[in-house]
Amino acid sequence: MINIQRGMFTYFHQIRVRYGDTDQMGYVYYGNYGYYFEQARVEAVRSIGLTYREIEESGTIMPITRMNIKYIQPAHYDELLTVKTYVPQLPNRILVFKYEVYNEKKQLINEGETHMIFVDMHTKKIKSVPNILLDKLKPFFNVAANHLAA
Amino acid sequence: MINIQRGMFTYFHQIRVRYGDTDQMGYVYYGNYGYYFEQARVEAVRSIGLTYREIEESGTIMPITRMNIKYIQPAHYDELLTVKTYVPQLPNRILVFKYEVYNEKKQLINEGETHMIFVDMHTKKIKSVPNILLDKLKPFFNVAANHLAA
Amino acid sequence: MINIQRGMFTYFHQIRVRYGDTDQMGYVYYGNYGYYFEQARVEAVRSIGLTYREIEESGTIMPITRMNIKYIQPAHYDELLTVKTYVPQLPNRILVFKYEVYNEKKQLINEGETHMIFVDMHTKKIKSVPNILLDKLKPFFNVAANHLAA
Amino acid sequence: MINIQRGMFTYFHQIRVRYGDTDQMGYVYYGNYGYYFEQARVEAVRSIGLTYREIEESGTIMPITRMNIKYIQPAHYDELLTVKTYVPQLPNRILVFKYEVYNEKKQLINEGETHMIFVDMHTKKIKSVPNILLDKLKPFFNVAANHLAA
Repeated sequence: MINIQRGMFTYFHQIRVRYGDTDQMGYVYYGNYGYYFEQARVEAVRSIGLTYREIEESGTIMPITRMNIKYIQPAHYDELLTVKTYVPQLPNRILVFKYEVYNEKKQLINEGETHMIFVDMHTKKIKSVPNILLDKLKPFFNVAANHLAA
Repeated sequence: MINIQRGMFTYFHQIRVRYGDTDQMGYVYYGNYGYYFEQARVEAVRSIGLTYREIEESGTIMPITRMNIKYIQPAHYDELLTVKTYVPQLPNRILVFKYEVYNEKKQLINEGETHMIFVDMHTKKIKSVPNILLDKLKPFFNVAANHLAA
Repeated sequence: MINIQRGMFTYFHQIRVRYGDTDQMGYVYYGNYGYYFEQARVEAVRSIGLTYREIEESGTIMPITRMNIKYIQPAHYDELLTVKTYVPQLPNRILVFKYEVYNEKKQLINEGETHMIFVDMHTKKIKSVPNILLDKLKPFFNVAANHLAA
Repeated sequence: MINIQRGMFTYFHQIRVRYGDTDQMGYVYYGNYGYYFEQARVEAVRSIGLTYREIEESGTIMPITRMNIKYIQPAHYDELLTVKTYVPQLPNRILVFKYEVYNEKKQLINEGETHMIFVDMHTKKIKSVPNILLDKLKPFFNVAANHLAA
């Protein structure tokens, strides 16, 4: 079931490594992957018909509370990386994204995870996942459940 | 007079080159100098008893409208750069900062200039330099003028 | 003639503004445009059948010697910017790129220029534009010339 | 014992939040902490009489293999953060740094950890911690051990 759900939420986003992203080892600087993850999850969300911008404009900010990264192989200048992004479970208060970064040889070079919370822009209080996002996510999980039940 | 004014406004700020600031040439990436200039001018302003944060909190944002950079020599990892910052003239609507970046051998490696304007945070209209900043800058220019007149 | 040449070298590249590119004014931080310019010119070069990576692998590094930027309007989070890049003249020792950045409303929000030189990776001596690049650029200028002559 | 060891390796480094480090939430962008951790550990190493640069010049590069970050509270523009860095144990093949970031009110706002390995620059093979670094680290642990034995 996890695989099916994962499959349903999986989004692949490509990122071209910039010269400025490398360091003098000739690798993508380890501190830049948080930016790559952001690019990937934003496009994953866009792919289901919603944007971060819209969520913010509805009065919710979305700080990250955790990030874990495992660096397996370096990425190099001008490589076209593919970031696989997926949401492992329907969120309640914490939205978890997982990431796998592949190089052009389809080698897994990096794995990561971020935790995101939802905060009312005005009261600064933590709240649940906003409905405009949850409504976009639910069908994917329901379909997966139906598929298994059938 | 220019020299005297420059002397009076000159502020020296040191910046340690981070690994993440370098690129695979082994040089500080050319796109990172805007960050260094910001660090330098913020400390220059702090040195006369004011902070950007206070100016913003008084309702003024300060976008940059121009930046010119001349790259003379590369900067390298872990070098302790010295950024000389000066204000060439008492500003009216545009505050000009000039920068000279020196390496540890006291070689001039980079020159730059930024133009900053002042915008009302709420109306988004351009306005003159706020008095809380102008009042801090004036004495330096007056002293220079008096000195020349004497 | 300038228009025709410019037309021939013009390349349009789109860049999505990342959350991490903004600052607390809600604008793209002024210091990030050097990264955007790099992305744009790299793709411009790729469009004529060559990559920076290949030029570097042939033993030439390409430091930037100048960058001038005029900030006209701010760019905001999640905007899909279009960077128009062009080479105004066939280079000899200095390769000039010019940039115009447009927002989704097709408003010109930023203009810039970079100068690039070519340095032998081993001797660190400045040299002329490498032939592998010049050969890709020449036909565009020649065609323009022929077109005018016809 | 852990406390004693930690105490001995603890290094405090201060970092001023730059405008360009913030995002439109008005917080330090989550992806920038890897840079802060680098600054902190480099200064921690310098404090025991060695520099990254020297280690690299001796033929060893030091890629990061893991980074975990827990974001507790946001950091804001112009805050002077204090990063506490410590090495929890004498390394063999993996050098672990731990970080605690405090704001000016001495609130813990961020915790993190990085794992670093050592790679021969020429053969690209993983190796043990170089002796020039290990020799600098050992005395601190020995002293702790002696102290406990006494």
